[in-house]
Amino acid sequence: MAGARLGERFVLTSYGESHGQAVGAVVEGCPPGLPITLDEIQSELDLRRPGQSKVTSARSELDRVEILSGIFNNNTTGTPIGMFIWNKDVDSRPYEELGHKPRPGHADLPAWIKYGGFNDPRGGGYFSARLTATFVMGGVIARKLLATLFDTKIVSYVTEIGGIRAEDVSVDRALSDRYSNEVRCPDPDAAERMVEAILQARREGDSVGGIIQCVVQNLPVGLGEPIFSSIDSDMSRALFSIPAVKGVEFGAGFNVAKLRGSENNDQYEYHDGLVISTSNNSGGILGGLTTGMPLTMRIAFKPPSSIARPQKSVNLLLKKDEELVVRGRHDPCVLPRAVPVVDSIVALILADHAIRAGSVPPVLKETK
Amino acid sequence: MAGARLGERFVLTSYGESHGQAVGAVVEGCPPGLPITLDEIQSELDLRRPGQSKVTSARSELDRVEILSGIFNNNTTGTPIGMFIWNKDVDSRPYEELGHKPRPGHADLPAWIKYGGFNDPRGGGYFSARLTATFVMGGVIARKLLATLFDTKIVSYVTEIGGIRAEDVSVDRALSDRYSNEVRCPDPDAAERMVEAILQARREGDSVGGIIQCVVQNLPVGLGEPIFSSIDSDMSRALFSIPAVKGVEFGAGFNVAKLRGSENNDQYEYHDGLVISTSNNSGGILGGLTTGMPLTMRIAFKPPSSIARPQKSVNLLLKKDEELVVRGRHDPCVLPRAVPVVDSIVALILADHAIRAGSVPPVLKETK
Amino acid sequence: MAGARLGERFVLTSYGESHGQAVGAVVEGCPPGLPITLDEIQSELDLRRPGQSKVTSARSELDRVEILSGIFNNNTTGTPIGMFIWNKDVDSRPYEELGHKPRPGHADLPAWIKYGGFNDPRGGGYFSARLTATFVMGGVIARKLLATLFDTKIVSYVTEIGGIRAEDVSVDRALSDRYSNEVRCPDPDAAERMVEAILQARREGDSVGGIIQCVVQNLPVGLGEPIFSSIDSDMSRALFSIPAVKGVEFGAGFNVAKLRGSENNDQYEYHDGLVISTSNNSGGILGGLTTGMPLTMRIAFKPPSSIARPQKSVNLLLKKDEELVVRGRHDPCVLPRAVPVVDSIVALILADHAIRAGSVPPVLKETK
Amino acid sequence: MAGARLGERFVLTSYGESHGQAVGAVVEGCPPGLPITLDEIQSELDLRRPGQSKVTSARSELDRVEILSGIFNNNTTGTPIGMFIWNKDVDSRPYEELGHKPRPGHADLPAWIKYGGFNDPRGGGYFSARLTATFVMGGVIARKLLATLFDTKIVSYVTEIGGIRAEDVSVDRALSDRYSNEVRCPDPDAAERMVEAILQARREGDSVGGIIQCVVQNLPVGLGEPIFSSIDSDMSRALFSIPAVKGVEFGAGFNVAKLRGSENNDQYEYHDGLVISTSNNSGGILGGLTTGMPLTMRIAFKPPSSIARPQKSVNLLLKKDEELVVRGRHDPCVLPRAVPVVDSIVALILADHAIRAGSVPPVLKETK
Repeated sequence: MAGARLGERFVLTSYGESHGQAVGAVVEGCPPGLPITLDEIQSELDLRRPGQSKVTSARSELDRVEILSGIFNNNTTGTPIGMFIWNKDVDSRPYEELGHKPRPGHADLPAWIKYGGFNDPRGGGYFSARLTATFVMGGVIARKLLATLFDTKIVSYVTEIGGIRAEDVSVDRALSDRYSNEVRCPDPDAAERMVEAILQARREGDSVGGIIQCVVQNLPVGLGEPIFSSIDSDMSRALFSIPAVKGVEFGAGFNVAKLRGSENNDQYEYHDGLVISTSNNSGGILGGLTTGMPLTMRIAFKPPSSIARPQKSVNLLLKKDEELVVRGRHDPCVLPRAVPVVDSIVALILADHAIRAGSVPPVLKETK
Repeated sequence: MAGARLGERFVLTSYGESHGQAVGAVVEGCPPGLPITLDEIQSELDLRRPGQSKVTSARSELDRVEILSGIFNNNTTGTPIGMFIWNKDVDSRPYEELGHKPRPGHADLPAWIKYGGFNDPRGGGYFSARLTATFVMGGVIARKLLATLFDTKIVSYVTEIGGIRAEDVSVDRALSDRYSNEVRCPDPDAAERMVEAILQARREGDSVGGIIQCVVQNLPVGLGEPIFSSIDSDMSRALFSIPAVKGVEFGAGFNVAKLRGSENNDQYEYHDGLVISTSNNSGGILGGLTTGMPLTMRIAFKPPSSIARPQKSVNLLLKKDEELVVRGRHDPCVLPRAVPVVDSIVALILADHAIRAGSVPPVLKETK
Repeated sequence: MAGARLGERFVLTSYGESHGQAVGAVVEGCPPGLPITLDEIQSELDLRRPGQSKVTSARSELDRVEILSGIFNNNTTGTPIGMFIWNKDVDSRPYEELGHKPRPGHADLPAWIKYGGFNDPRGGGYFSARLTATFVMGGVIARKLLATLFDTKIVSYVTEIGGIRAEDVSVDRALSDRYSNEVRCPDPDAAERMVEAILQARREGDSVGGIIQCVVQNLPVGLGEPIFSSIDSDMSRALFSIPAVKGVEFGAGFNVAKLRGSENNDQYEYHDGLVISTSNNSGGILGGLTTGMPLTMRIAFKPPSSIARPQKSVNLLLKKDEELVVRGRHDPCVLPRAVPVVDSIVALILADHAIRAGSVPPVLKETK
Repeated sequence: MAGARLGERFVLTSYGESHGQAVGAVVEGCPPGLPITLDEIQSELDLRRPGQSKVTSARSELDRVEILSGIFNNNTTGTPIGMFIWNKDVDSRPYEELGHKPRPGHADLPAWIKYGGFNDPRGGGYFSARLTATFVMGGVIARKLLATLFDTKIVSYVTEIGGIRAEDVSVDRALSDRYSNEVRCPDPDAAERMVEAILQARREGDSVGGIIQCVVQNLPVGLGEPIFSSIDSDMSRALFSIPAVKGVEFGAGFNVAKLRGSENNDQYEYHDGLVISTSNNSGGILGGLTTGMPLTMRIAFKPPSSIARPQKSVNLLLKKDEELVVRGRHDPCVLPRAVPVVDSIVALILADHAIRAGSVPPVLKETK
């Protein structure tokens, strides 16, 4: 009941329900003196909002962010930053029966039991992916903080959708090209086939899953607090908080099961006076600490549960089996809209750990 | 610097270094009235301790646990439980040069930078897998709590080592047979080949990785606190705190990337008056909450970094490349000893969430 | 930088600045099924808002609360409750010089140093007592929860202002009469003199302090988590978070310094089958736990720092001494408006500890 | 049930029971490179241990501290510091009946209810003041950290016992003379009368209370995290965690109730280029932040509850009134032994906040 909070020193608190009044964020712990404008936050939210392309939900939300506190004269003040967006394009009719007729693959059934039927079921309520807008609100600030201090680059992008895998590309290419198509995949050929796979699934009343990769460059060495707040511990916790995520791996990931130590170990050498490793199977993490090599991770997203096809469900009031046809406006694939969300979540964890490691000054610049 | 703590209401605090005086645990939040004996804790620790078989490290530690507080007349008192084991069979000579000559794949390099050279490098210090003994100390109590209240069964076992995959077995079979061989794999044929793979790797001065699967039966519905303390969030955080873990997945895991919604959704039906799902791709988790279906997860462990073969490293004092030959007594494969550790970590998170969900009474039984 | 949060399981997060856009609260951890209406929250806020009587600030704020989430069909949902009020009657002109000319007795100087000049100085910014409106937002819900479950009565009232002490009254009398006058003191004679003392101070460009007493009846025994979250520990922490508080005592308080053990110990006897104590010097707290006797505490509030008289200050830019005349609209005494704030803070801590002690069911009632 | 922890970034975890095996501490968050020896910790513990003078308990404990981890080559490593002392001179016979015959003024009754009779009642168990030895273990390290970085001086001393008040002395005098007598009061005349008052009370089978004052010099400006982790909030929380404390005040404390704003406000002026205040009614705290002026606080301790005189109690098993005569070895006054405990608690909070404010470097010195 108190899981609305992410982070220890750079803290995001998220509230809201999909069809309630608003969804909002409170961001604590950003040091004073970080320049940030409403437009910067809005631009990133725009990358996440629905209704923008043929592969996403038709729900049309402007998602205009309002800043309530914590930013003064376009700088952070050092006190909590309150932000929110109103819910506007709400159509709750399709959800009338959902309170007692749980959608397969959704939180409906365990939520109904946990909250005794009092939770807001409309649009998934608190379990809606709409809450990820609040991750972006906080993530923009975290990302700006990291970029300002360390020139950190956080680059998430789609590498697989519906079984179609993209070619490997460089981080620079991913950064420059990831938003050049609707599926946010920097390989244009694969992107085209992914779009087709999504549309095909939608036509068939179905949905598809996929994988997002994230690479982070330019981080301080030693971020992370072993044992239980190691950087991979906290990062995975945050990534699994994104709806639909079912797997997370760092560096060589599940493939390490097949490697020998001599293959997996990243050996060291001096390069221009700096110690680097000649491979990066560790994904930039050793002993739960950042190594200075790029942080790499892969995140598996399931296909959206809300599909148009009839499914087997139950009527919890009548206590009998019933067929269900999910109505409403749904994404046939969450990955395109999840790209800025992954960027944000990763930034939030790294900003928190940068502060915890003592790498962030208590005031970010001289006041004029 | 404050990552020594796992859990919100059932809390483990871990301390110690591999070659220091002792490693210990403080367990807070266990309600009063849980019967527990020294022997129960010792038996589980014995499953983890080294020096027991030909596939593990030769370090011979008795790991006799001492209880310092919190258990009185063989019942928990409700106040913090202090426990520890002395470090005895310590041979620190091989570590003399490690402070400034980092082992590939180990925490040595980022730890040296983070702690400015003050951390205890002997045996990996605080980063040693020896600290997982403290997970077991707390895990035994958590497991007993869950078993007492819900008849919960937590069953971890090895399913893959060095590329050799075991056959699928039932949970009952896994529970009864997992400790029948040295690699803790309930498929005896695969187990035999895994032993051979480990011994072969050791003969070649190398090491192997693998996968542990964990299934949990008999859990209350609704454990987990969305968004950021969802059951998968907190579970993954804890699992990545085990040294050598590089990937975690729940239910269908990474395979969801290839599935369609119609394949992945677990459909509902009534079965003897209870709602069940006819498949379990969700791994018993929807919306970050337990569903009542078995919780299933898979955890990838890398091959141990400490291998006998010469590797490329650097001398941090002389600032030049140097070959490294790691000495000392090391496990050629961590998975066999990690099985009780995974059980423990899973139990700790579930006990914490059972308390947080209000499923645990404040006093466990009537006093006589 | 992350002090915006009160509580472990029933959690208030507060944001806002006195002259910013809004001040708001996020309340986590209230179980689902608590009936609550907008009017209930508004009524309590009305007791705190300024501009209502001749003894308070002339700032006229309607403080109309908006509920953004967490309440659905007039019941709590179990998910975070977002609420806020807009700042409307803002006059920031008097604060233009305050950024660099600190008011004696205010946070101006240490805040200017801590936040490097980036904090919002208008109206005290985040340090304004206006933030206590958010305590009330959360406090209403906490109080309703406690009243519903335990019939708990939380009764704060003024016992001293400007050196004038009220007669002792019964808790029932305090409850019924405390809001019958402008100073919220249930002794009408003393109240009259207190009003006069406040007006006299205002006429002289000055301000007065005083004491609020709080008595809580009908609490479960055993609330509190020794050692460091004992009920007095957490309560005092919360009370000192109210601006202007300089002293807190429980039961016999500072007077214990003069008592002998034989005088101070509250002896036991059976009374109608229940164990009671024949005195209550402990203030209902032993060993950091509630005893079942009334919880009693006294809180000292300093006279408001913002006074009309010229005071000695410094110009931080010119680095020289300068006289300061504080302008703006200020309360000559904070106690009357602080009464609902103390009620709220006390309720928040008790609700949190009731949940932590396992005294609160996870769902509060049957859904229809 | 999880109150064993103090601090966010510099964290003390305390465990143990008065007559169990041991009492111990885990200290997290001290940066690496702080020189500390076993002797430094032992010396401070010696100031607290019983059996040293005619005004304290006759229980004779050597309290030899053992360091289990976190200190290597006489420097902190940056990882958790485990420490404990064995319980040796234990005589549990007097406690046999206490489980069901609660001592007036003690935690016995609420603890018996909260823990369902499973808590260890011997010597007060977890509620014993013996646990304050763990505060000292952590406090020594915190104090050394503050002294090393800021030359901080924390000076607690007795100012009142049994109604006898000491003369005011300078901080320097308090620092040099406080340990020159058995009651730790720097006014020798008052000290003599205090000793007599304690002995007189003991002769009469009774006990006495008093007041400890604490002054802290040389602190960074801006420590504290408003609103809810303000420096006075967190400090009072920690002080009320010391057994027997019933009141806490800062600066002018309860006396502010009688002051006008013009009297209470500490006005500013430049002094040798620094802004100081010409009085210190704020006690060095404004808006919950340290101001740079000395931090001053007063703490009221009740007379010990364990007195030899017969008292009225109840038999919880027979459910009837019964007279109680408390046996065992008890302090007739806790204040002398509480002086190093207050020093320690104050240091722990300040060290935590110094880290949180970014005033502490992540590594304390160059390694050789």
